[in-house]
Amino acid sequence: MVYITRREHFNSAHKLNVPEWSEEKNLEVFGKCANPNWHGHNYELEVTVKGEPDPVTGFVINLKNLSSILRTKITDKLDHRNMNLDVDFMRGVQPSTENVAIKIWEQIYSDITALGAELHCVKVKETENNSVEYYG
Amino acid sequence: MVYITRREHFNSAHKLNVPEWSEEKNLEVFGKCANPNWHGHNYELEVTVKGEPDPVTGFVINLKNLSSILRTKITDKLDHRNMNLDVDFMRGVQPSTENVAIKIWEQIYSDITALGAELHCVKVKETENNSVEYYG
Amino acid sequence: MVYITRREHFNSAHKLNVPEWSEEKNLEVFGKCANPNWHGHNYELEVTVKGEPDPVTGFVINLKNLSSILRTKITDKLDHRNMNLDVDFMRGVQPSTENVAIKIWEQIYSDITALGAELHCVKVKETENNSVEYYG
Amino acid sequence: MVYITRREHFNSAHKLNVPEWSEEKNLEVFGKCANPNWHGHNYELEVTVKGEPDPVTGFVINLKNLSSILRTKITDKLDHRNMNLDVDFMRGVQPSTENVAIKIWEQIYSDITALGAELHCVKVKETENNSVEYYG
Amino acid sequence: MVYITRREHFNSAHKLNVPEWSEEKNLEVFGKCANPNWHGHNYELEVTVKGEPDPVTGFVINLKNLSSILRTKITDKLDHRNMNLDVDFMRGVQPSTENVAIKIWEQIYSDITALGAELHCVKVKETENNSVEYYG
Amino acid sequence: MVYITRREHFNSAHKLNVPEWSEEKNLEVFGKCANPNWHGHNYELEVTVKGEPDPVTGFVINLKNLSSILRTKITDKLDHRNMNLDVDFMRGVQPSTENVAIKIWEQIYSDITALGAELHCVKVKETENNSVEYYG
Repeated sequence: MVYITRREHFNSAHKLNVPEWSEEKNLEVFGKCANPNWHGHNYELEVTVKGEPDPVTGFVINLKNLSSILRTKITDKLDHRNMNLDVDFMRGVQPSTENVAIKIWEQIYSDITALGAELHCVKVKETENNSVEYYG
Repeated sequence: MVYITRREHFNSAHKLNVPEWSEEKNLEVFGKCANPNWHGHNYELEVTVKGEPDPVTGFVINLKNLSSILRTKITDKLDHRNMNLDVDFMRGVQPSTENVAIKIWEQIYSDITALGAELHCVKVKETENNSVEYYG
Repeated sequence: MVYITRREHFNSAHKLNVPEWSEEKNLEVFGKCANPNWHGHNYELEVTVKGEPDPVTGFVINLKNLSSILRTKITDKLDHRNMNLDVDFMRGVQPSTENVAIKIWEQIYSDITALGAELHCVKVKETENNSVEYYG
Repeated sequence: MVYITRREHFNSAHKLNVPEWSEEKNLEVFGKCANPNWHGHNYELEVTVKGEPDPVTGFVINLKNLSSILRTKITDKLDHRNMNLDVDFMRGVQPSTENVAIKIWEQIYSDITALGAELHCVKVKETENNSVEYYG
Repeated sequence: MVYITRREHFNSAHKLNVPEWSEEKNLEVFGKCANPNWHGHNYELEVTVKGEPDPVTGFVINLKNLSSILRTKITDKLDHRNMNLDVDFMRGVQPSTENVAIKIWEQIYSDITALGAELHCVKVKETENNSVEYYG
Repeated sequence: MVYITRREHFNSAHKLNVPEWSEEKNLEVFGKCANPNWHGHNYELEVTVKGEPDPVTGFVINLKNLSSILRTKITDKLDHRNMNLDVDFMRGVQPSTENVAIKIWEQIYSDITALGAELHCVKVKETENNSVEYYG
C-alpha cells in the first residue's frame, strides 16, 4: 500500500458567525474571525490517496486525473470565492477549517473510488500555523 | 549602513473592481479577482529599515519598536478585515498589491524616521507566487 | 473524528551531555551537540488534537484556548531560555528532541483533556532536517 | 514509542516510459514525464524511524548513523544521477515517485534494523505539490 | 516606481560539460554536475518588473499577461525538458544557473517592454541553497 | 554582471547584554534576548557574490570554492557554538544580527576577492521573521 499526496491552493473569503447569537457572543467565541465584512486566506489543500502501484506505470493513481477532480469539484468552486455565500457544498455549514475538510472529503470521495484508488486524508491548511486533517 | 527586515502577517478580504465599468470589463481585466462577494489572502508584509548599528546595542532599530509600529498602524487595521470596506488608509484606493504596498509605506514612514532609522522597502506578498516591493 | 494542528515556536539553548562520561566519549556520541558552552535552535512545535467538531461552531477545540495552554505551559518556559538550566519540566532530562517531545506531551495532556478534546501528537522540529513525533 | 525523521536531498534525472508502448500512448499516460531526453527534480527524502529513546542519550537512533546509511545506500547513488540508467536498485523499475519510495525502503530496511530501531516510513517529495509515503 | 515579482517553476534535466576537456578535468571543475547521463532540478523562476501603477487598475502590469509571456517563452520550452538538448535558446550555451538567468532575460525583455513595463530582474533558484540574479 | 547566492546554516547560542548596565536596563532594552543562561537560533546565512560568468564554465564563481570559504571561515566556527564565548571574530562584539552580518563580511571579503569575484551582500536570517543584510 502506497500513499500519494497532491497539493492544491485556493484563496477564499469567509467569516465565522452564528446568526442566532449576539454580536458580543460571536466576538467572544470567534474573535476576529467574526468580523462582519469578511476576511480571507490562502488555503492549501493536500489530498492523500492510497492503493497499490500499477506494475506497468508505477502509479497508484494518475495525478492528472486526481488534479482534474480537485479542480472541478473543489478549487474551481472555492478559489477567489466567498465560502459562506458562493459555494454550493458549503451552504448552511459553519466554514471552520474542520468543516471545510469534511465537506471536501464528501465532494471527492466517490470520484476517487471510481478511479480505483481509496481516499485516505484531506488536509486543509488555513495559515502557516493552523491546519486540519480528516480521514473519513 | 545595515538593512534589517521584519516580517508580519495579515489575513484580509478584498476584491478588484472599477465601479464605472461593466461586469464584463471588470472580469476581463481583473479575472477572478473581480468576483463580487470577495475573496482573501494570507498576506506577508516585510518591512526593511536601514541605518548604522548603535555601537553599544548593535541595533539599527529595536525590533520591539518596529513591531509595535507595524501592529498599531498596519496589522491591527488590516488583519481579519475587508480592505475595500474596513480600512481607513485604503479608502478610495484600488486594493492591488501595488497599492497596498504604497499605502503601507505612507502609514509608517514618519514613525520609523522618528525612531532614528530610515524606511527602505515595503514588500507585500499576496501569494507564494505574487509579490510587490516599494522603495518610496 | 477530525485532527487539528497548531504550530508554535521557541528559541532555546541546550547541549547534550552525560556528566559521568569523559569529554571524549561525549564528543564521540553527541558530536558538536556536546560543546560545553551551549548552542541553540529555532524549535517548531506542532500539537495535534482530535475530536468531533461542535455542530454550532464547527470547532474541535477553540484554537485560542489551545494556544493559551501552549503559551503558558510550554513556550513561556522554553522560549529564549536554556533547556538544561532554566526549564522546570526538563530538569534531569537529556534534552534530545525525543525527550523534549515526550516532556511537552506530559505538560499539556491533562489541560487538553479538560477542554474536551484529546491530545493526538506532539511534533518537535529542531532543524529543517530533524524532527520527532510522539503519540503518547 | 517515539518517531524520528531525517530529511535528505538528491537531484536526479528520469523519465517515465513503457518501451512496449507507442510514443502516443506514452505521452497520453505520462504526459511531459515521457519526454525522451529526460527531465529532473530536486527530490526531498524523509525517513522516519521508531523506537524507544535510550534512557541515557535520549536517542531513538543516533542521527549520525541514520544519515550515514542514507548517504551510502541512497543519496550517493541517486544524487546528480539518472534514475533510469545509473542506479543499481532502480534497474528495470518504472521510476514513478511511488516506486522510488518502495525501492528506498528495501535498500535501507535491514541497516536500520541492525541499529536497533525500526523503519516506519519513507517519504519522497518530487515537487512542492507531489509526494509519496510508503510504510512497508 | 513599484516592483512586482511573479514566481514560476520548471523541472529540467541538464549537465555541465566542456566537450574539449578530458573527463577528469570536467569532473574536477564541475563535480557531480558533469555526470554524463544527466541530472535535474526543480527550478524556481522569479521575474521582477518595474513601473508606475495604473491609476485605475492599480497594476504595474497585469500578471495574467506576464504569466502568459513566461509560459510561452520560457516554461513551455524548459519544463520537463533537457536544457542541453531540447531548448532552442540554450543551444550552444553552458547551462549554468548564471547562463540560464541571462538567456531567460534575453527571451522576455522585448515582450515585457511591449506591455509598457520594464524588466528589472530575473532570478533563477536551482536548489534551496543556490540561486542567481541578473539585472541586464 | 551576475549575482550568485549560496545559502548555509549554523546553529548557535548567544545572548544580548551590556555588562555595565543593570539587569533591569538589559531586560528593558533586550527583552528575553538578555536572559543570562543563553538562548539560540538556527541561523541562515546567504552570501551573494557578483561578477561576469566565465565564457567556458558559465560560472561567476565555482560554488565549491565559495562553500569551502564559508565552511572554513564561518560555519565551522559558529555552528553548535556560543557566539559570545567561543568565536574568535565575535570577541568583544554585541552579537546582534546586524553585527553578525558585518563580522561575517569582514571574515570572507578578501578570500572572495582572491577568487576573482566581488562580495556583494551578506544576509543573516535569525528567525522566520527577522533578517539583516549588509553590503559593505
